Amino acid sequence: MTKDAVKNSKQTVPKGAPHKQAKADDKLEVGITVKKSDDASEWYTQAITKGDLIEYTQVSGCYILKPNAWAMWERIQEFFNKEIKPRGVKNMQFPLLIPESLLTKEQSHIAGFTPEVAWVTHGGHHELPERLAIRPTSETIICDAFSKWVRSYRDLPIKVNQWCSVVRWEFKHPTPFLRGREFHWQEGHTIFADKKSAEDEVFDMLMVYKHVFEDLLAVPVIAGKKTDAEKFAGAEYTTSVETFLPVGKALQGATSHYLGHHFADAFDIRFLAEDGTRKPVHHNSWGITTRSLGAMILMHGDDKGLVIPPRVAPIHVAIVPIIFDDSKERVRKYAESIKHSLSKICVESVLDDREGFSAGYKFNHWELRGVPLRLECGPKDVEKDQVVLVRRDTGEKSFVPKTSLSIAIPELLQAIQDSLLDKAKKRLEESIVEVKSFDELKKVIAQKKVAKAPWCGDVSCEKKVTSAVDAAKSLCVPFDQPKSLPASCAVCRAKPKAMILFARSY
Amino acid sequence: MTKDAVKNSKQTVPKGAPHKQAKADDKLEVGITVKKSDDASEWYTQAITKGDLIEYTQVSGCYILKPNAWAMWERIQEFFNKEIKPRGVKNMQFPLLIPESLLTKEQSHIAGFTPEVAWVTHGGHHELPERLAIRPTSETIICDAFSKWVRSYRDLPIKVNQWCSVVRWEFKHPTPFLRGREFHWQEGHTIFADKKSAEDEVFDMLMVYKHVFEDLLAVPVIAGKKTDAEKFAGAEYTTSVETFLPVGKALQGATSHYLGHHFADAFDIRFLAEDGTRKPVHHNSWGITTRSLGAMILMHGDDKGLVIPPRVAPIHVAIVPIIFDDSKERVRKYAESIKHSLSKICVESVLDDREGFSAGYKFNHWELRGVPLRLECGPKDVEKDQVVLVRRDTGEKSFVPKTSLSIAIPELLQAIQDSLLDKAKKRLEESIVEVKSFDELKKVIAQKKVAKAPWCGDVSCEKKVTSAVDAAKSLCVPFDQPKSLPASCAVCRAKPKAMILFARSY
Repeated sequence: MTKDAVKNSKQTVPKGAPHKQAKADDKLEVGITVKKSDDASEWYTQAITKGDLIEYTQVSGCYILKPNAWAMWERIQEFFNKEIKPRGVKNMQFPLLIPESLLTKEQSHIAGFTPEVAWVTHGGHHELPERLAIRPTSETIICDAFSKWVRSYRDLPIKVNQWCSVVRWEFKHPTPFLRGREFHWQEGHTIFADKKSAEDEVFDMLMVYKHVFEDLLAVPVIAGKKTDAEKFAGAEYTTSVETFLPVGKALQGATSHYLGHHFADAFDIRFLAEDGTRKPVHHNSWGITTRSLGAMILMHGDDKGLVIPPRVAPIHVAIVPIIFDDSKERVRKYAESIKHSLSKICVESVLDDREGFSAGYKFNHWELRGVPLRLECGPKDVEKDQVVLVRRDTGEKSFVPKTSLSIAIPELLQAIQDSLLDKAKKRLEESIVEVKSFDELKKVIAQKKVAKAPWCGDVSCEKKVTSAVDAAKSLCVPFDQPKSLPASCAVCRAKPKAMILFARSY
Repeated sequence: MTKDAVKNSKQTVPKGAPHKQAKADDKLEVGITVKKSDDASEWYTQAITKGDLIEYTQVSGCYILKPNAWAMWERIQEFFNKEIKPRGVKNMQFPLLIPESLLTKEQSHIAGFTPEVAWVTHGGHHELPERLAIRPTSETIICDAFSKWVRSYRDLPIKVNQWCSVVRWEFKHPTPFLRGREFHWQEGHTIFADKKSAEDEVFDMLMVYKHVFEDLLAVPVIAGKKTDAEKFAGAEYTTSVETFLPVGKALQGATSHYLGHHFADAFDIRFLAEDGTRKPVHHNSWGITTRSLGAMILMHGDDKGLVIPPRVAPIHVAIVPIIFDDSKERVRKYAESIKHSLSKICVESVLDDREGFSAGYKFNHWELRGVPLRLECGPKDVEKDQVVLVRRDTGEKSFVPKTSLSIAIPELLQAIQDSLLDKAKKRLEESIVEVKSFDELKKVIAQKKVAKAPWCGDVSCEKKVTSAVDAAKSLCVPFDQPKSLPASCAVCRAKPKAMILFARSY
């Protein structure tokens, strides 16, 4: 390592946080200027830009994911890879570009995706003989490969996954994380000899997604089945985890599809079974996107900016030494020794010893970024061999002896993680209102809540709701159903088949 | 986890290896049918397809990287991430699509890339107002962001990296890993206040690439500076690591560029310096691609197929129990207990207990895939509490007591790793021939060797060589130069400035 590299490796404050001018000035980094409850959309834009997650680009719907955002996605990747590997799923990579003739092989699939495909028509100065789609999803190119790899039942199951970005050229209003024209995701694709194994996996993977949301992102979700109107283009059925955000909108978190024989038939993925007959495979796909980060931000953020759950936080502790001229070196050394001991227990910390910035400026700086804990230490704390710890989520302050930090900090981080999930669960439960009539249903949705309604299972009743309330959608039919159902469908008064959730949705 | 998932997690043989028929048959998986020395190109195609790394697609130059290939790339990612993190480099993600107006901002850059850009012209049914390039590299979109993030010297350095794929629509003959229209890489982009820090990093990163090639892939490389004719479009200068493959062609391994002020000027990336003046930043970029895997394959593969160095091998040991009807269960249990104990010492193994396949079939199967060690155990070995270990690189057999495996296997893997590098180093050294005259130079290149020639530094002499010998290129001016140079340039007889390497090259 060169000297310079060594020097740089010691930098304690992430670079690229613009100070706008050479001279430091407290007033330069302003906090969020709107309340989350007053203007959720403006609050969100400020939270993700001032919180150093997103940079906009010239191309609408295409965003730069800054290091703090990408580090969280890497945490999700790490967690997810550890889940799928023991399930026999292998990571691999399929091409970005899919020929038009391949993309159009499965009818309902292409009908769903054609309006939003980004087409490559030229290579250099030459027009291509066939248009190439930037993958909106990869079922078609993967099924084309599966058809070459499968001969007999011995070859099954095949389970693959890829981490990549996909492009869907939507014309709805784009929002970073929540609705982008390019977004990052993983897509798992698996094929099985028998239906039961395939369907078991659909639900198994949905539960993995539930873990990602609840255990990592502290975002409670409801698992269920999408209606036929809302299922994936090409699926037999789609399962999903859904959440409801404090801004009054629901969000589909991740999906796991049983695709049946739709693609197996279109791509001729058949195998010689043990009984000597040739059968089509049973096919699943499942995915989670960077949208999950958008849900997390909207769920936990407050009027001061981001609040990041410790398990995905790139930085757990922001150490802010309170520096006066006469005690500068003593306090700095004290802070450095704390940073050093935290690194030993895998607590990621940043030491903000920038000169020329006030403590208040720095508090604001790390609050905007949602760092779970702030650790302050001034000359008096050094004397007492203690520090001040401040929770980002509650603002709660505690004085902790330096010698107890290696126990106190992990405990506090766990407490923050648990508390974020508990509060969010409570809010989610309070948002769901059981309704009996169509009028009640409309009223609850209009009140920015989730309506839980008895439903006959008919798509015409579902359509009546979505056309009656702007931006309303059915979220899912939760797996968790009451033992006995109300007497009649909230819309048509027929006998209900299940309880269904409706709300305004992203 | 469902029962089915548990069952699948126990699978011992990777799926997707086609057996073509339900009934197993020794003759179905044929080995490589040509000698590497007779027909390198056909050998390579067979090695990467039969070795289960690559699947071709309908789109020329776009390939499927199968799990065995992707796992090796993940090893490189892991190694590289651990190197850059302490250097203060942060991973992040920039968009796939770059507007034409942004791509064309730096003149020499766009001149180099225009002929091979894949253009997106339509989103769904709509023609886009401006064509979008699929990134061939990301300097332009990253510099556009840098210009927003830099105000003062306090903001510098900024060091970012992204792992992604890029598209270059070349019309030369494509070859998986070596020359693809889509390929995977990392691209690091860094900016500094001062030239020295920037240039120090150029060389520091080049040394990291040298480690990736030599320590992970066992591919020896020569570090040096590219000539002006061969440098990156938009660079002040380009450094590279180069290797020479047994098939008689050189290959550029990875590059690290000092871009000076080229992009800083085009994108107005300036900072307020401590002296109060506004200065352009010093800018680097550096990258390594999946081409590195192609180099490794060509370097070590033999007439039986792939030979994978242990440090990147997804599977270290293929366990093949020799099964007879009367001792089946005993031998299988013995093999399973070995697999279990190997997993405890982080040795990745596969237990090939497929029924209906002969031992010979299995040996061939794992040899094709380049697995470093084969472990055989039959009923007699069980009796003697031993196993047979067979090295993939040398075919060397040894009988090892079962109780010594946890020491013997890691030692053998290290020995294989070292031996692959040593042999490759020796071959590389033998391939380089020092020449004095133009005739000698041409002859050596024609003999499929590397000519090391004294060079005056003039581009016209370089061009004379490349036009005299088909597919010949200057590789680099190695950093390692002799204390005194020969009397005259091999081409023009003028006073030489340095020794330069010429060879046919990928």
